[in-house]
Amino acid sequence: MVNFDYQTPTRLIFGKGVVAEKLQEVMAQYGNRVLITYGGGSIKRSGLYDQVLELLKDKEIYELPGIEPNPKFNPSVLAGVRICKEHHIDVILSVGGGSVLDCTKAIAGAACSDEDPWDIVIGKAPTLKAIPIVDIITLAATGSEYDSGGVISRTESNDKLAYFSPYVFPAVSFIDPTYTFTLPVKQTLAGVADCINHIMEQYFCGEHISMNDAFMEGAVRSLVRNVKVVLEKPDDYEARAEIFYATTLGCNGIYALGNSASGWPMHAIEHALSGHYDITHGEGLAIVTPRWMRHILNSTTGELHEQVVERITSFGQNVFGTATPKESIQAIHDFYKGIGIPMTLREVGIDESRIGEMAHHVALNEGLDEAWVPLHEEDIAAILRDCL
Amino acid sequence: MVNFDYQTPTRLIFGKGVVAEKLQEVMAQYGNRVLITYGGGSIKRSGLYDQVLELLKDKEIYELPGIEPNPKFNPSVLAGVRICKEHHIDVILSVGGGSVLDCTKAIAGAACSDEDPWDIVIGKAPTLKAIPIVDIITLAATGSEYDSGGVISRTESNDKLAYFSPYVFPAVSFIDPTYTFTLPVKQTLAGVADCINHIMEQYFCGEHISMNDAFMEGAVRSLVRNVKVVLEKPDDYEARAEIFYATTLGCNGIYALGNSASGWPMHAIEHALSGHYDITHGEGLAIVTPRWMRHILNSTTGELHEQVVERITSFGQNVFGTATPKESIQAIHDFYKGIGIPMTLREVGIDESRIGEMAHHVALNEGLDEAWVPLHEEDIAAILRDCL
Repeated sequence: MVNFDYQTPTRLIFGKGVVAEKLQEVMAQYGNRVLITYGGGSIKRSGLYDQVLELLKDKEIYELPGIEPNPKFNPSVLAGVRICKEHHIDVILSVGGGSVLDCTKAIAGAACSDEDPWDIVIGKAPTLKAIPIVDIITLAATGSEYDSGGVISRTESNDKLAYFSPYVFPAVSFIDPTYTFTLPVKQTLAGVADCINHIMEQYFCGEHISMNDAFMEGAVRSLVRNVKVVLEKPDDYEARAEIFYATTLGCNGIYALGNSASGWPMHAIEHALSGHYDITHGEGLAIVTPRWMRHILNSTTGELHEQVVERITSFGQNVFGTATPKESIQAIHDFYKGIGIPMTLREVGIDESRIGEMAHHVALNEGLDEAWVPLHEEDIAAILRDCL
Repeated sequence: MVNFDYQTPTRLIFGKGVVAEKLQEVMAQYGNRVLITYGGGSIKRSGLYDQVLELLKDKEIYELPGIEPNPKFNPSVLAGVRICKEHHIDVILSVGGGSVLDCTKAIAGAACSDEDPWDIVIGKAPTLKAIPIVDIITLAATGSEYDSGGVISRTESNDKLAYFSPYVFPAVSFIDPTYTFTLPVKQTLAGVADCINHIMEQYFCGEHISMNDAFMEGAVRSLVRNVKVVLEKPDDYEARAEIFYATTLGCNGIYALGNSASGWPMHAIEHALSGHYDITHGEGLAIVTPRWMRHILNSTTGELHEQVVERITSFGQNVFGTATPKESIQAIHDFYKGIGIPMTLREVGIDESRIGEMAHHVALNEGLDEAWVPLHEEDIAAILRDCL
């Protein structure tokens, strides 16, 4: 068991009807000038936008709409920082999915600094404080509602980078699973794949403890079972709630305190895919997952290989009831394919032309030579080719 | 899945050597006047007391030694409040087990109020703020290092009452499993029993979700396995660390977010035992556990009975590999007896003479008629008689 230093101060308000019940009470703790950040029109179609404005009708409201999936530094982060500085925003209310919230975190940090916002995002300049963030999270996927990080893309350089600061934990996250009843199937599936992958990145490592294994295997079993339920019945509250619960805990570390670091290799590789092609993150992760597993199974030797075999076997045994590492890898592939996720890069519009470039980008920027199973440029290229 | 509103702001610093590594940095965030609270002499014998004083030699140190197991309102809480008020204490450093920390929480809350400290403890007067608390926890048991509650006894009235306030979450908890290498066997066992019972109180309820079950079953399996390891080899770091990790998460709710409330019936009954006889809390819980299980199995009917059968069966199946509810109850009894916990009240010096009085006290004060399986005075008396 490795030493850890863990803190997640975010208050989670979870369940049916929690926004109507508690948003006003929560927002009353902050000042009067509120920036509401959101994405496309879905919160307007669902009525959530109107509900929030009505609940906050005594506040001075500013808005930043149009935040993209894979949120962009330019224009979104820059526009948000400008509004916050100009209008002395007291609190930012993020209403939407993980992309809106990730973007909000970068805004909240950069708006409290005189440094170049890009330097804040890449950590060249330190985040020393942030505007308080409250969020209403509408998509079960990234776990951004319970962590201190966000992923920001810069189109000019194909960069997709993680921004972290303890100052950008949401103060309060509202999670009402009924908001996910009307999600497009594609987003439901991508969210589940995103969360399963978050868990796998923490499960597949060198040093791990048994109760974390049980927790993570239980969470993945829950996701596997419940995603099938909501494909049949999108408004099944229990299934939607269990999915949202599992995804909320995905990225703050609570699944695996005391486990050693893995390096999050599948995320690192996927960030190149969605950085270069703007594909849906969860779909990219689903595609990469079985290929990364196969690569580490086939390319390792000695003690590391024994670790790899043990992890892949245990995961398959306790999630899918499989017996061998190969069956485990096949089971996760077949599960994703069975629920309807495109499982090749060609299906999401990516061919071999930029594989070398992407592998180089990952090898240069993601430090995977230090990962649990170290990956070099040729390993990354081989995994990506296997994904075609 | 039931709605929940959850927050645990405490920073956990866990592992070998963390006090030497980070105590000064942590304490530098607070003012200069430090009250150190502790219990008997064990921290002096172990060298921890000297280490802490050396690390804090630039601070103005006050001390409250002698805090009792089952900490007493009078003298300990009152004495601590007096020191804090007289010397304008900036931060309290609790060094010891859960009893020291529980007492510290009551001091921290009552010292910031002009109301009668007993009224603060029983909630008659509100806790509106508290002196910041840092702790070095030396006993793997109560989980007080990661929750906002404490249990305080008042000898005059045989009261043993829980005190809760969101203001008394420790700011930072230092958890070094090596401190438990030299614990007396009795305390190691009682701590494990305490934690298993915390988990069972959250597991045995009406509405529950599958990933919580997996987490809790995994934690109990870990405790059952690792306590046997440390009985053989008290300085096995991995086993001590896994035990401490499981106990730290025991009481803040993270094991069972979204589960319905159970009423914590075994704790309620045990509080009467240790309130009237000052026995070791974990031993009292171990004794009550199989008798409470048997009582609810035999006394319920209809849908509630089906729930009871399902919970007892699942617990036994997934922790001990048993098949029937009776085998599950026998397995937990035999596990406790096998590791050396006294499993009857007579063995801990309690006879039938005050059972009626204790049952009356519990029925009057603990609200068990509202528990998942409601218990009235005659049920409580029957359970206690079964414990003799």
